[in-house]
Amino acid sequence: MTIFFHWSEATPDIWRNALTAENIPGDLRFVEDPGALSDINYAVVWAPPQGLLRQFENLKYIFSIGAGVTHITLDPDYPSEVPIVRLQDRLLVQDMSCHIIHWVLHFHRYYARYRQYQGEKKWLRHRYPENSSRRISVLGLGQTGQDACIRLSDLGFNVTGWARSEKTIPGVRTLASNDAFDTVVREADILVNLLPLTPETTDLLDAGVFNRMPRGSFLINVARGSTVVDADLLSALDCGQIEAAALDVFREEPLPADDPYWSHPAVSVTPHAAAPTNEGSAAEFIAGQIRIAMDGGRPAPIVDLARGY
Amino acid sequence: MTIFFHWSEATPDIWRNALTAENIPGDLRFVEDPGALSDINYAVVWAPPQGLLRQFENLKYIFSIGAGVTHITLDPDYPSEVPIVRLQDRLLVQDMSCHIIHWVLHFHRYYARYRQYQGEKKWLRHRYPENSSRRISVLGLGQTGQDACIRLSDLGFNVTGWARSEKTIPGVRTLASNDAFDTVVREADILVNLLPLTPETTDLLDAGVFNRMPRGSFLINVARGSTVVDADLLSALDCGQIEAAALDVFREEPLPADDPYWSHPAVSVTPHAAAPTNEGSAAEFIAGQIRIAMDGGRPAPIVDLARGY
Repeated sequence: MTIFFHWSEATPDIWRNALTAENIPGDLRFVEDPGALSDINYAVVWAPPQGLLRQFENLKYIFSIGAGVTHITLDPDYPSEVPIVRLQDRLLVQDMSCHIIHWVLHFHRYYARYRQYQGEKKWLRHRYPENSSRRISVLGLGQTGQDACIRLSDLGFNVTGWARSEKTIPGVRTLASNDAFDTVVREADILVNLLPLTPETTDLLDAGVFNRMPRGSFLINVARGSTVVDADLLSALDCGQIEAAALDVFREEPLPADDPYWSHPAVSVTPHAAAPTNEGSAAEFIAGQIRIAMDGGRPAPIVDLARGY
Repeated sequence: MTIFFHWSEATPDIWRNALTAENIPGDLRFVEDPGALSDINYAVVWAPPQGLLRQFENLKYIFSIGAGVTHITLDPDYPSEVPIVRLQDRLLVQDMSCHIIHWVLHFHRYYARYRQYQGEKKWLRHRYPENSSRRISVLGLGQTGQDACIRLSDLGFNVTGWARSEKTIPGVRTLASNDAFDTVVREADILVNLLPLTPETTDLLDAGVFNRMPRGSFLINVARGSTVVDADLLSALDCGQIEAAALDVFREEPLPADDPYWSHPAVSVTPHAAAPTNEGSAAEFIAGQIRIAMDGGRPAPIVDLARGY
């Protein structure tokens, strides 16, 4: 039973301790010296080198150090017959919701205007809608999307959640299907994107979507950059159709130095930092799932490759 | 039964409609033409002209258009024998909590640093404590303080509430008394001030308090400006003892153009806008309390002048 581990930002001892706590022999192999590749049964990885996983002929499970899995599946050679277990982490959900709530409140109360007034030493109050009149559309109702919907509803906002398949969230209006997508977009004073990246969601947020949103609305993207057609978003921001955007994810990361987002006055850039993996709790979760696999059980949640998440 | 009304920012029709809905004759008197002063039984006011309320010899209740009442009681001639009913408004509590949550998250996640990095086109993540390790001390446990404590706890923060008298909030650690005040201050990574202005709270937040707070902590003031010794706060900010402050209230409002807060890089100024009175719901609440008084009941909440709130 051998575990291959790949995450350049890791503190290996945190992972060894978590494995020990689950009574798993802590024999970790790294890319620098992986030993006999046929020994490897489990791979715990973030963005492994292209073609590497394919070489582990006895690989049983791939554990993603992150909620998204495109860092694995974008490798054209990755072994698609091996199940991928996504990271599911209470702290990750909490951090994501906090990031979303921060930007929702920032936009809802127009704090950027106060920052501007402060620069002009101007004591000037502006109005804002009651929370119950502010419509927030959340795209994607996985664990994080559901949590965000509930917390924003608790703050009194008028929240609609949308997912490809029907989901029920107590106290929150949810919609599904492509027809409903139009409604969700038209009613989005603030649009929060939490959709996984799939062929259907690539380039989904384009000029057609931005133009159907209410004039002066806001975008919060915390999912994947390739969901957004960047040129279309920039046009929508330039003409005020979208008043401002908080972007945490980008088509190319790190965001290239010459990217227009950096200096756009209506864009807030954060460096894919909405919900950084917490090593301690991620290691605990993954060690627990490896334990289940070693005991002959089925670790969870396993990615459905047909859906792409 | 005559009502005197004074609020320069009011839309009188909203108030007339609210009174009509409670079956109260909508005869409002204004300062420009108050008629016979002895007719007046109820005064609904924000910052009435000094000495005016004293002249209403048949005044039964004063209704404050705001949660605070110093806009009435700072008048040395105000009739202290007449009970003051404070504004209690669900929307006001919600707005206040949203403002507090926004600044807590802003400081907790160090979003100001990302804004700075963006200016430098720098893709750089910084660490922040887990929510459960971030200690937030909330001073003042009225309706808004309690609501803020509960919501911040729900977000996973380590919250302690402090009030002069014992209060119980399910799931939140609360402390009372002057001894405990020291603990609350020493453990305040983020200090939220919601204390009413009284002789005891005037100048309460001074160098002694700021120096006992953890180095690099944060202040959010949404109560009254005179609670803070401004020179002491500026010194604490200058030397980094306090990393940043979000100030919504000031000793003099509007904040004078030459005030150093305007241009201090670690201060965010908002113009007493954390929870602006919502005319619709305030008028509903006050009309309901006038109805109770007219029916011989006791409107609430009545300010305890010994406590000062």
